[in-house]
Formats: sequence, structure tokens, C-alpha cells
Amino acid sequence: MATNGNDNCNANDSVWQFRGNGATSDAAAVTLRKLVFGMFKNCNFNNGKTILPSTTHSFKTCPEAEEAVAAAVRSGMANSYAPSPGIFNARRAVADYLNGELPTKLRPEDVYITGGCNQAIEIVLDSLAGNPAGNILLPNPGYPHYDARAIYSGVEVRKYDLLPERDFEIDLDALEAAADKNTVALVLINPNNPCGNVYTYDHLKKVAEMAKKLGIVVISDEVYDKVVYGDRPFVPMGTFASIAPVITLGSISKGWVVPGWRIGWMAMNDSNRILKNTGVVESIEDCLDLTPQPSFLLQEALPEILEKTPKEYFAKKNKAMKRNVELSFERLRDIPCLFCPKKPESCSYLWLRLDTSVLANIENDLDFCTKLVTEESLVLVPGVALGAKNWVRISIGTEESELAETFDRLKSFYSRHAISKETIKSHVDTVNQIVVAVV
Amino acid sequence: MATNGNDNCNANDSVWQFRGNGATSDAAAVTLRKLVFGMFKNCNFNNGKTILPSTTHSFKTCPEAEEAVAAAVRSGMANSYAPSPGIFNARRAVADYLNGELPTKLRPEDVYITGGCNQAIEIVLDSLAGNPAGNILLPNPGYPHYDARAIYSGVEVRKYDLLPERDFEIDLDALEAAADKNTVALVLINPNNPCGNVYTYDHLKKVAEMAKKLGIVVISDEVYDKVVYGDRPFVPMGTFASIAPVITLGSISKGWVVPGWRIGWMAMNDSNRILKNTGVVESIEDCLDLTPQPSFLLQEALPEILEKTPKEYFAKKNKAMKRNVELSFERLRDIPCLFCPKKPESCSYLWLRLDTSVLANIENDLDFCTKLVTEESLVLVPGVALGAKNWVRISIGTEESELAETFDRLKSFYSRHAISKETIKSHVDTVNQIVVAVV
Repeated sequence: MATNGNDNCNANDSVWQFRGNGATSDAAAVTLRKLVFGMFKNCNFNNGKTILPSTTHSFKTCPEAEEAVAAAVRSGMANSYAPSPGIFNARRAVADYLNGELPTKLRPEDVYITGGCNQAIEIVLDSLAGNPAGNILLPNPGYPHYDARAIYSGVEVRKYDLLPERDFEIDLDALEAAADKNTVALVLINPNNPCGNVYTYDHLKKVAEMAKKLGIVVISDEVYDKVVYGDRPFVPMGTFASIAPVITLGSISKGWVVPGWRIGWMAMNDSNRILKNTGVVESIEDCLDLTPQPSFLLQEALPEILEKTPKEYFAKKNKAMKRNVELSFERLRDIPCLFCPKKPESCSYLWLRLDTSVLANIENDLDFCTKLVTEESLVLVPGVALGAKNWVRISIGTEESELAETFDRLKSFYSRHAISKETIKSHVDTVNQIVVAVV
Repeated sequence: MATNGNDNCNANDSVWQFRGNGATSDAAAVTLRKLVFGMFKNCNFNNGKTILPSTTHSFKTCPEAEEAVAAAVRSGMANSYAPSPGIFNARRAVADYLNGELPTKLRPEDVYITGGCNQAIEIVLDSLAGNPAGNILLPNPGYPHYDARAIYSGVEVRKYDLLPERDFEIDLDALEAAADKNTVALVLINPNNPCGNVYTYDHLKKVAEMAKKLGIVVISDEVYDKVVYGDRPFVPMGTFASIAPVITLGSISKGWVVPGWRIGWMAMNDSNRILKNTGVVESIEDCLDLTPQPSFLLQEALPEILEKTPKEYFAKKNKAMKRNVELSFERLRDIPCLFCPKKPESCSYLWLRLDTSVLANIENDLDFCTKLVTEESLVLVPGVALGAKNWVRISIGTEESELAETFDRLKSFYSRHAISKETIKSHVDTVNQIVVAVV
């Protein structure tokens, strides 16, 4: 839009009483989008390479899902406003989808339809934000939208560690130590992004018992429930709802590879009516009246998507993921600055420790990712964006050809930045000379 | 879900530290959904009638719009995450759609894509909520989502009246009197819901000059811009952006009769860069990182919907609306308790004054609407829900057959509840006797 130039406006501004809300920037600053975008800002893409990961070579969704949405459009029955909690058929279909082996079955009324898992996160955090001194326990590493929305809702963030040496299990002692009388909830991500592990039945039971001991609700983010390709089975946290109340978050974004469609859910595993009696359910329903509704078109399509998608679609995709993990591990041998403590058995990433000591002029993970995207047009998520310094997350949910290209670029980047044996030797010599001089 | 019974839970609750967020209910309480739903709660529908208005007999959307969404699904190019501000093609298409006669054209970067107009309202109010003492000027009658979100964002609501005797023009003196140094914005709804008027060029210019005088931003809700069937042309508020900054809100919900699709926008008419320099634009972009994104499928379809829909579609629909208004006015003659001060020239409602003095046992508009829905399964919006006591809003955006049925039900309801001439006479006699006795 044409402007009158800054001098003019700055003069103008004095007469205007309104200002932007600073609180929004504090919260947005920690979002993945802001951090990754910030990484791009100072890059000049003059290397002639296409940016990876590409959206075009990632896994495809299934025709049944596309057909379900097209049918919803053609039906003309999904054009009016939908009820705030979601349409009944979608709520019923999600309850059926989640019930499986659950000891206490969900009713349609226990499920709310949201605009993807992110909106479920936003609504749950807003609904628990009553206590001004309240705090929430988030995993480290974790998914930063929880941090952003906790800040936005005025809930203090406290972190608990996932232990690489113990298959990224939750450090339950640290979790208990971080909690106090103002703690309202703990967030669990299972299957785990970014670590790629799946939690055992026994570990999840311990988490539920700890939640009961602390008197807090478990928010279980199960958005990757359909992306499991290891030997360990996925166990829904709702299994332990009789011990502590569990709010399960999910969506079709990851399993069906359609994050852009924005359709997800939250389910109240509340067999003892704790969430009901503490007013959390009521507050969630109020939030649903105040926040955007997911498109009726996607709600109308959801039952067919959940019920008609053949098991083979997931089996094939997960088999490809398993193969990608093996290929990635072979290729990692050529890239000594990156180390993966555990072969992922779920999700579509490698979570890698970055060793900057074998690299020249690479300060940390953010510096590594920034230079990588500038030189190789390859986008990795720096660990700091997920709460862990000197780790990086590589997306490997892509076709083999693109995966190969990804590691070719990583290798050439490493070759250019690796400290040569000579460099190391001269470095050691210098240190010795200093030692001699000092002694 | 099975429960252990209340006694058990109440016992359980004591050990749980979390509670629902009360703030959400204060805000949700004033939403249209809550108020209309509350009206239904105590009704028993034992009259064998189908509920009106029906969704099946309202106006249909155009095949071009349905085809655009189906094509977006089939393309497979709208499955990944979309950028927070919206995809470029959608932002460009909305800019082109709005630019028309605007003296200063919008750029794609001045437009943000939202999940319908409601999300645009939510984001704008959050972005202006920095000042804890801040207040906003809302029209009375108006659209309650503004009230709800202002309360939720901690912005004080101050009302200004629309004047029935002056074509529902804004009472600018009252508006100025309501403002102070903490006022940040005024909301204007044009074409006007519920009043059905369209504001003149001269009146809108006066509004812009008043906004400049007060140092506030104009939020112009133009969601009904395609539903205009009177002689007076619709003038976009952006026309006056050189006087005061204007944030224009809109969507395809009303013009294309697809409120359930949830795709809309907000546009920064900011030729003097006031919104930019006061940090409002930055705060809006932060909010877009923190709140749900509209489905990529709808964003992908939006350009084709805006560009390919033939003018005839709107012309035909508006002609039908004009006919419905005439039919409604004829039928209103039989229903003396309802009076329409102005024939609507836009939107799809009649905004009617309710005269309870000619009705027996009807206390007010809420009582009228509650008994009407119970006895006739006919849903009207009580004026109190929109800020005006003893008014009602009837939806007339429907096929002729349903419109006729609507007024048949209103007439039979009136006939049952009307005070008979005898009742009035005896009432007058009683009063006279009292007068005689007193004198």
C-alpha cells in the first residue's frame, strides 16, 4: 500500500491512542514458526538448490480421505454453522476411533472437534488458566506451541527432562520436584516428537500415578498415534483414566499427512468425573463458543476418513518410514558431527545430538542450521526451538530420492566445515604450549 | 462415559489442584450461541412442527464455489501447513476483491486470511488489548461476538446507539461522549446486521473524521457486502483510510451462504502507516502464529471462488431477498405486535420492534421468543441478545414457501396471545374506576 513516508507517519502517530498488544509478541516469540522463520530471515538463497524438505515429495494422503471431503462439498449439507463442540457424527466417529482397547469407553459427548491438534492445545490451556499463579509441566525437548500458549494464557511453564539414556522416558523424579501446589497439568507427547520413542504401558501407568499423587490432569498429545513402525505398541494414555483424568489430543494431520486441512479433536477420559466436577469441561465448552470452529466440510468428512481408510495405507507408509530410518542411519556414518542416541520407532524425524567440537566456526545448533540452510537450502529444526541446545531435528518422512539428497547435502556441508586432523593436532599443540608456559 | 457417581467424585475432587477458568464463562455468556441455546434449554418440542428457519431451505451457494473446493482437494497441493498470514494467492485475491474503487489500493501483504469473520474479530481485539484500561466502542444493537471477545481480551465495552428514526445512522454525539483517552477503536457494521441499512458515503466520512478526532482505529465489519438489494450503494470504509486507519473484516460466509466453511479475512487500510507504526500490524501477525489457521483447502479455493462466481448469482439472490422483504411487510400487517421502522436494504433479516402491550402474558422479547419456539418451533433472535430490549430479529433469507410458513406461525402465535378488545376495554374501565375512586 502506498505510504506518506515515515516522517509523516511518526508525526501522525502522536494523535493515535491505540497500540499493538505486546503480550502477543512474548508468546509468539517461542513458536516454531517464528523461530524457523527467524532462521530464514538472514539467509540469501544463491546456491541454486531447491529447498528441502519439499512438500511435493513427502508422503501422500489416501484417496479415501480426499473423496470424503469432495463428497462433503458436493452434499451441500455442510454449509451452515456447525455446533460449537462439533457435529455429532464427527464426535461419535472420533469416540469410536479412540475407544479400541480403552477400559472405559468414550461417549460422543466426551469428544470435541477442533481445528487441528494446535487448537486443542490452545483451548485446553485457556481452560486451565484460571489460577493466576498456576503452572504446567512440559517435556524437554517438546513441542513449542505448548510453551507459547501457556505464556499467552498466563500459565507458568516448568520443564521436565526426557532421558536419552533411558529411551527418552520421563524423568519422574525431576517432574515431581518441578511440581508444587499451583501445578495444574503435565503434558505428555506419545508417540514422542521429536525423540521418536513410544512409551511402555508400565511407564505410562507410573505417569498416571504421579499425576494422581500431584493432583494434576494429564494432557496426552497423541497426534502421531498412526505413525508407529517399531516393535513397541502404542498405548493410549486414556487407558489409565481411572487413576488420573486424561485429556487426549489428536488429529488426522500426521497419520493422513494433511496438516493443512486443520481438523482434530480433544477427548475427556474422565471416568471419575473429575474434569466435569472441577469445571474444566464447562470451561472447555465456553472456549469452544469463543474460538474459531473447524470447517463443517472437514467435520462432515471426518467419519468417512476415520472409518474408510484401509489399514494398508498406514502399513505401507510406516514400512517406508522404517526403511527411511535404516537408510538414514547408514548415511549418518559419514557425518560424525551428528549422533542419534536411539533409533526412532515412531513419528517422522531423527532427533540428533550435534557435536560442534568437530566443526570449525559452528557455534551451536542454531548457527549450524542457519549456515546449513544458507549453503545447502536444507531446513533442519534447531534443538533450541524444541528446548534442547545442540540437538537438531531432521524430517525423514519423504521419498527415498529426497532422503538421499538430504544426506548428500548434509555430508557436503560437514566436509566443508569439519575440523581437519591437522587442525585438531595444531589445536592440541597450542594448548600444550600454553600449559607449559603457565606451569 | 461410565461414572462412579457424584458422592465418590466430590470426595475425589479434593485431591485435585486444577479448576476450570471462570473467565471463559463470563465471556461466553454473552455469545449469540449461548443466548439462543439457553432459550432452547427449557423448551419441549411437542408440537409436531419442524424447526424454522431450516438449513435445507435457505439460499444455496453457487456451483463455482463448490467446484473450487473440490478442485483444491483433488490438486493435493493444499495438504501441507499454510503460512500463518495465509497463502499468497488467497491474500492477493482478497486484495483484488476489496480494491474496486478504493483510492489507495491494498497489497496482498495488507490482507490476512482467517477462519471466517469471527476469527478476524478475535485477532483484532486481542491485538488492541495491550492497555489494561483500554475500551472499545460497539454499536447498539450489534453483533455480540464483539462483546464476548472484548470481555475475553480484557477490553472494556462501551456502547453507542444506532438511531431507528434516522435510518439507523450512528449517534455520533453519543459515540463521542462515550469515548475517552483509553478508547482504542470503534466497530462499524456495514451493511448493518441486524438493522438492514447501508451507510451513506457522507455518514461514513463523518465516522472517519470522528475516529481521527478521537485518535482511534475503525474496525469495519463488511461481512454482508454482497447482500445489498436496496437503492443505496455499499461504500467500503477503506475509502476513508487517509483520514483514519481502517481494519476491514469480511468473509464469503454471507455472500456465498457458506458460514460453515469458515474462510474470511482482515485487511489493513493503512495508507498513513498508523497501524504499522503503532505495532498493531506486528501484534496481528503474532496472533496469527498463536491461533488456528483456516484450512489450506479453503485458502486454495478462495481465489477461484472470488474470481469465478458470476455476478448473476448475487443478483438473483438479492432479487429474491428484495421480494422476501416485500412479502414479509405484507404479512406483518396481520401481526400488530411487531413493527419494522425501516425496510431493510441489505442482510437477510427483519429487525422488529416488539409491542408487548397488545399481548397477554408476554413479558419481553426473550419471553416472546421462548414461548414462540416452544409453541411454534420458530426461532427468532431476541433483541436482548443483540443489545436491544423488546426487539426481535427474524431471518428471511429463505425460500418463499418457508417464508410463508414462518409468518403463518407468527400469526397463529399472535392470535393466541393477543389481548382481545374486551380485555382492553375492561382494563380501561378498571383504570377509570380507580381514577374516580382516587379523586
